[in-house]
Amino acid sequence: MSEDSSNGTHLLLDLWGATNLKNKELIDATLHEAARACGATILDIHLHEFGNGGGITGVIVLAESHITIHTWPEKSYAAIDVFMCGSMDVSKSVSSFKDAFKPKRIEMSTHSRGK
Amino acid sequence: MSEDSSNGTHLLLDLWGATNLKNKELIDATLHEAARACGATILDIHLHEFGNGGGITGVIVLAESHITIHTWPEKSYAAIDVFMCGSMDVSKSVSSFKDAFKPKRIEMSTHSRGK
Repeated sequence: MSEDSSNGTHLLLDLWGATNLKNKELIDATLHEAARACGATILDIHLHEFGNGGGITGVIVLAESHITIHTWPEKSYAAIDVFMCGSMDVSKSVSSFKDAFKPKRIEMSTHSRGK
Repeated sequence: MSEDSSNGTHLLLDLWGATNLKNKELIDATLHEAARACGATILDIHLHEFGNGGGITGVIVLAESHITIHTWPEKSYAAIDVFMCGSMDVSKSVSSFKDAFKPKRIEMSTHSRGK
C-alpha cells in the first residue's frame, strides 16, 4: 500500500429514503468526489448495472484501500463502505453521498482496522 | 441486485501473523474460493499489486455484493471484508482465508446491513 502504516478506518454507511440510485453517471461522479474529498488517490473504478429496475454496484480502488456502493432503488436504500488506511479522514466522504442521494436517514458506524 | 431483499451481512476480518500476502495468484484463487464457499455468483475480479515489496488489493464483485482484501506483507497483516445480501452465510468464506494465509490471529466482526 502507499501508506507506511496499515492503520486505517472503515466506515459503514446505510442510506435510507435515498434517490438517484439507478443513475450510473451520478454514482460514478459521486465515488470520484468522495475519494477526492478525503484526499485519496484513485487507481481504478468499476460499475455494474443490474438492469430490469435493479440497482448498481460500484467499486473504487484507492491507493489507500477502497470505497464501494450497492444500491436497491426499489427500497430507496444504499449500502456504502469507505475504507482508508493511514491518516485519511473517511468522514470527509459523507457529504458527497448526502448531496448525491439526499437520504432521509443515515446510519453510520466506524471500525478501526489494522491496529 | 440479484436478491429480492436488501438485507445482508457485512463481515470485517483482520488477519495477523499471516503469510502469502504478496502471492497474487493465490489471492486471486482464494477470493474465487471464498465466494464459491458462500454460494455467491462472481461477476468480476480486480487485483492491484503495489510493487516494491508492497501488498495487494483485491476486489471481487458479486451478484450478492462484494469481497475485498488489502494486504500489508511487511506487517503480516491483511484486512478483508465480505458483504453479501440475502440469505448468504458470509462465515462460510472464513476457512478459505485461513487455509490460504495461515494467520496466527484473526479478529472478526459482523454487521447487519439494510435492516
